[in-house]
Amino acid sequence: MSLAVTLADVEAAADRLAGVAVETPLLESPALNDQLGARVLIKAETLQRVGAFKFRGAYNRLVQLSPEERRRGVVAFSSGNHAQGVALAARLLDMPAVIVMPSDAPAVKVEATRGYGAEVRSYDRLTESREAIAAEIAAERGAIVVPAFDDPHIIAGQGTVGLELASQAEARGVRLDLALAPVSGGGLLAGLSVALKAHTPATQIWGVEPAGFDDLGQSLAAGRRITIKPPGRSLCDALESPFPGELTFPILQRHLAGAAAVSDAEVAEAMRYAFATLKLVVEPGGAAGLAALLAGHVPTAGRTVGLVLSGGNVDPELFARVIRGEL
Amino acid sequence: MSLAVTLADVEAAADRLAGVAVETPLLESPALNDQLGARVLIKAETLQRVGAFKFRGAYNRLVQLSPEERRRGVVAFSSGNHAQGVALAARLLDMPAVIVMPSDAPAVKVEATRGYGAEVRSYDRLTESREAIAAEIAAERGAIVVPAFDDPHIIAGQGTVGLELASQAEARGVRLDLALAPVSGGGLLAGLSVALKAHTPATQIWGVEPAGFDDLGQSLAAGRRITIKPPGRSLCDALESPFPGELTFPILQRHLAGAAAVSDAEVAEAMRYAFATLKLVVEPGGAAGLAALLAGHVPTAGRTVGLVLSGGNVDPELFARVIRGEL
Repeated sequence: MSLAVTLADVEAAADRLAGVAVETPLLESPALNDQLGARVLIKAETLQRVGAFKFRGAYNRLVQLSPEERRRGVVAFSSGNHAQGVALAARLLDMPAVIVMPSDAPAVKVEATRGYGAEVRSYDRLTESREAIAAEIAAERGAIVVPAFDDPHIIAGQGTVGLELASQAEARGVRLDLALAPVSGGGLLAGLSVALKAHTPATQIWGVEPAGFDDLGQSLAAGRRITIKPPGRSLCDALESPFPGELTFPILQRHLAGAAAVSDAEVAEAMRYAFATLKLVVEPGGAAGLAALLAGHVPTAGRTVGLVLSGGNVDPELFARVIRGEL
Repeated sequence: MSLAVTLADVEAAADRLAGVAVETPLLESPALNDQLGARVLIKAETLQRVGAFKFRGAYNRLVQLSPEERRRGVVAFSSGNHAQGVALAARLLDMPAVIVMPSDAPAVKVEATRGYGAEVRSYDRLTESREAIAAEIAAERGAIVVPAFDDPHIIAGQGTVGLELASQAEARGVRLDLALAPVSGGGLLAGLSVALKAHTPATQIWGVEPAGFDDLGQSLAAGRRITIKPPGRSLCDALESPFPGELTFPILQRHLAGAAAVSDAEVAEAMRYAFATLKLVVEPGGAAGLAALLAGHVPTAGRTVGLVLSGGNVDPELFARVIRGEL
């Protein structure tokens, strides 16, 4: 079966993002290396515009709209990082944007989305359908709905993380044995896997998802897309998709070595480690890969590992509780 | 008058540190650039080993000791970051180290110093002399005292920050109009100024110190080293030296465009900005330069600015209070 996104698509996205997105640094911490007995190259997407990789895919999608489409604007639904990515991309391209966000989304994510000039439409997770609200707004205004992950341009945009990771590792003369990234709907992981597998086919790629939200792990085991029944909320507000995407899953199925699941406690511990040792602010979902490494869910001894820290948008109150050890 | 440290000294230090210290990244935040109407290149020494630039100078000093000196070990006094730098350098070079630290030093700094294997001797700021304690230990053990800033090898080691900043800026095709770094005794700023002025003589270099601890500003104005009477404590625990160094001051006097002073409130605001927008953990003293920029103490509009974030070692409890706006 042919996949929805090719290396050429990711490379074209990289051209569109050049000079617009940040080429995030590949960091290395001797302390983390010592602790794991491995060499970990940290792709810090926390340092991307809007504080998360999501800007890449959103911009790659919006910049390809026609002048007429740009005039009508876009609508998206998101708990936070895709919201900010779409809002900033729309502002840079001078387009109106409406973002449908759950009423319990992290306040920093809602405020930042408004700060980028988007109109925020709040909804109640339990009683309202975000898809229905977005469809209604799209119908009223003729606006384009921008999916969070199940879209070839979004996947290709996120894939530029993998392209940079591959070329930055190569520039250091290093070949990655492993690569880990957090996964929800799979846009980042799918795009990254297309780029990495094209450059270094031997790199084993792992997705990391919250325990209880292991739809990817279950889907990989079943050989088909499984929708899970969420057990409640995860600390990782950005990783709560109950199923892998229709476009992302075949890509993940083709490229992944496996999926690991991390508990809220392991994620909180990883956030504390990032604070105390790496000196990086990482949001819960962004720290899932680091949590998997620190908890030993993916064996790394003696290996070279590419690790994506995917986002850093976390409410001060939650961050304070985590670093004080209250979570 | 000839200065205590030359470009050749800094370059020799860089050779000694190659593969040992982290070449810290030069980061750029479109959001910060927009806010200041400037281009700010952030030299993130928070990502250095031990979480601060101090490792550079300490290692450059210790690696030049003779086998006999290494056997007897070293002693240093420090409120925290120099302590960790000396402790880790000593561990890497397999030497004993005793660090004399004030009993009210940040707990993370004391624990990390012990974690690197150093013996910590606690003292009371009000009733004991750290110099006397260190001298006594040195006499007993034949250990070498490693000064925090007033030593050519320490200054040269810290100067490698400036060497990297110059070459990283050049690699981006950028010439720095300005450079800012926090200053206490002046080791970092003196070393950095030697490197930067050799590469781009037109770069204006500023030191930033806590209000009330403006010994550098007063000394520059007076044309001689002034010792201030500290008005109490500063939020910037790392920047409380009451005088510029004997070796550092002539270097600073030769190279600096000026010194700016920042209040505790401005520093706390800068730490919040680093948390929320840059996604970086910065300790109070490390954020002094950023505080000066955000508060408008150094005019930056339309200019290209090199900014050193010098350290990220901050107690979780203090960091929590700052990001919650309690400080």
